[in-house]
Amino acid sequence: MYNIALLPGDGIGPEVIKEAKKVLYAIQERFGIKFNFKEGSVGGAAYEVFGAPLPDDTLNLVKDSDAVLFGAVGGPKWDHLKRELRPEQAILKLRKELNLFANLRPAVCYRFLADSSPLKNNIISGNLDLLIVRELTGGLYFGTPRGRENTGQTVRAFDTMVYTSEEIKRVARVAFEAARKRRKKVTSVDKANVLETSKLWREVVDEVSKEYPDVELSHMYVDNCAMQLVLNPGQFDVILTENTFGDILSDEASVLTGSIGMLPSASIGEKGPFLYEPCHGSAPDIAGKGIANPIACILSAAMMLEYSFDEKEAAMCIKDAVEKSLELGYRTYDIKEGEGKVLATSEMGDVIKKII
Amino acid sequence: MYNIALLPGDGIGPEVIKEAKKVLYAIQERFGIKFNFKEGSVGGAAYEVFGAPLPDDTLNLVKDSDAVLFGAVGGPKWDHLKRELRPEQAILKLRKELNLFANLRPAVCYRFLADSSPLKNNIISGNLDLLIVRELTGGLYFGTPRGRENTGQTVRAFDTMVYTSEEIKRVARVAFEAARKRRKKVTSVDKANVLETSKLWREVVDEVSKEYPDVELSHMYVDNCAMQLVLNPGQFDVILTENTFGDILSDEASVLTGSIGMLPSASIGEKGPFLYEPCHGSAPDIAGKGIANPIACILSAAMMLEYSFDEKEAAMCIKDAVEKSLELGYRTYDIKEGEGKVLATSEMGDVIKKII
Ligand SMILES: CC(C)[C@H](C(=O)O)[C@@H](O)C(=O)O
Ligand SMILES: CC(C)[C@H](C(=O)O)[C@@H](O)C(=O)O
Repeated sequence: MYNIALLPGDGIGPEVIKEAKKVLYAIQERFGIKFNFKEGSVGGAAYEVFGAPLPDDTLNLVKDSDAVLFGAVGGPKWDHLKRELRPEQAILKLRKELNLFANLRPAVCYRFLADSSPLKNNIISGNLDLLIVRELTGGLYFGTPRGRENTGQTVRAFDTMVYTSEEIKRVARVAFEAARKRRKKVTSVDKANVLETSKLWREVVDEVSKEYPDVELSHMYVDNCAMQLVLNPGQFDVILTENTFGDILSDEASVLTGSIGMLPSASIGEKGPFLYEPCHGSAPDIAGKGIANPIACILSAAMMLEYSFDEKEAAMCIKDAVEKSLELGYRTYDIKEGEGKVLATSEMGDVIKKII
Repeated sequence: MYNIALLPGDGIGPEVIKEAKKVLYAIQERFGIKFNFKEGSVGGAAYEVFGAPLPDDTLNLVKDSDAVLFGAVGGPKWDHLKRELRPEQAILKLRKELNLFANLRPAVCYRFLADSSPLKNNIISGNLDLLIVRELTGGLYFGTPRGRENTGQTVRAFDTMVYTSEEIKRVARVAFEAARKRRKKVTSVDKANVLETSKLWREVVDEVSKEYPDVELSHMYVDNCAMQLVLNPGQFDVILTENTFGDILSDEASVLTGSIGMLPSASIGEKGPFLYEPCHGSAPDIAGKGIANPIACILSAAMMLEYSFDEKEAAMCIKDAVEKSLELGYRTYDIKEGEGKVLATSEMGDVIKKII
């Protein structure tokens, strides 16, 4: 029996979580696995009721669970709040509290979705299948000192980008392990021609790579990587990078697929509970309309089965069902083309569930 | 009489500088302006002769000039050097010594080059004409403290992202002034949901925007901007951002044009000399073959005429000549399509010179 904390959050979060749960129930029946779901309040929704984006009750629920399935948080309604109260803080705090130092974000362009990609078909076709491993609890986002000073008329604000060799080592290992199960190539991205943290990053990654002689390592500057992703995404297998660079590059990579509504992510650490969430945000513009694509969240559930529970067969079953539904021509609003059958969020969930 | 310091540098740098000089001689004749060129050694080439990427002689030459036209620096030959000796340090040092706090990088996709863009034609066509204003002497690249500490087995490296309100104000003004001469829209890019420096950035930019009621200001997170550039580049007029984000986003934007060999840049400050350079690098793979595209460097010379010498007519004359040459079907290797006439570097320079 697996205890799963469901954190639906804001916007389309609850809508897609509902479909993932539906699919997990189908998995339960087919594979005789037992899931125990508990829901927690998070994000703007939690702020409205409890005055905090991550109430203690939710944090306790999460800590008592075996894995967390997260919807999405945020929306214009909460943009005016001061930073500590804003929905995004929930996700930052969860990462830190659970020590989720590695964010795995696959970006895949399904062949039949090449028309939805912003890239020309000859660049994208059958070429984009990469995994970004982003360091998630270090760097600029958490480094201290941070703050501001006033000196007369002038204000001075500062953040600190900081990494220890241990922090780099552990996330590098995640990338090399992942590459081993893929095409055995790691591209480590940094700005070692300028930054001290990047110089250390490069040294440690070189060091770790000695443990993985079967995996090919190369280094690339972050500005060049931002170009190469667009020019020739097929060159990448696993991209390993620090927190800020990973934030930017993973979002860039995700839209290249033409299907950000279909991309899952996993945030993992030394030991669980780990956290799984779709790459897309809360999409306030389409919330409540029942037209969101639930596939990113459903595939996040599949990653959960794989990484948290080692239920590889069940995970594969979900992935296959998703591919099958797409092959059969089922589409949601965001990936519709020409004459395709456009389904509502819950209809897409039903189709996938039925295939399972 | 304008004193111009020419710093050809490495790789294709000398090849493209030569063509820019050729074009400036034509301008001299046509407009009765007088240029006085002095060449300085920089980058790997300087390291080979003087043991430093920016010898004192070069720095003095530059400081005595009215403007600097820079080729490109770097190459695998010097990658093993320790950081202080590497070619890139020359450009970092020049920015700091000359206090060039604003980097202007236009990204334009010429209509007839839409096929060369990695983006689908319907996304790119007639849609990409933006200017990135990148802060160039602050943030992570120059912030202190920076360095590393050893504690037992663990090494800890750190960089500091730091901005004062004054630094933000002056570069913001550059962006708003530029927007005034364009489509009157500034998108300021930050990570204000996480970073202290970004929070200050946003406050100060809001403040400065009050001086420009005719310019529309919006704010965007850097991860979202990396996506929006690919999904809908036509939404942007002027993008204003800090050093690191600008480094990444400007390179991403530049390849979207399909013609990085054609994009100029200007690095400016409170007072000259300012520095002008092509966006492309030293391209060691094609150096010495005479096939580089000289247009980025030639257009950088045009920016020099405009920003350093206020010779608007002469600047426009160069821009027109470049467009004309392209309209006539002349192409270099990097932008060749189908049956087009492919010219060598010096032939392209000749064509443009003749049109002037
Ligand atoms: C909401 C924000 C703090 C977060 C981040 O930057 O890490 C998000 O952009 C992401 O990528 O998960
Ligand atoms: C060479 C390097 C230091 C430089 C930078 O990052 O500023 C370059 O990438 C650029 O964008 O001009």
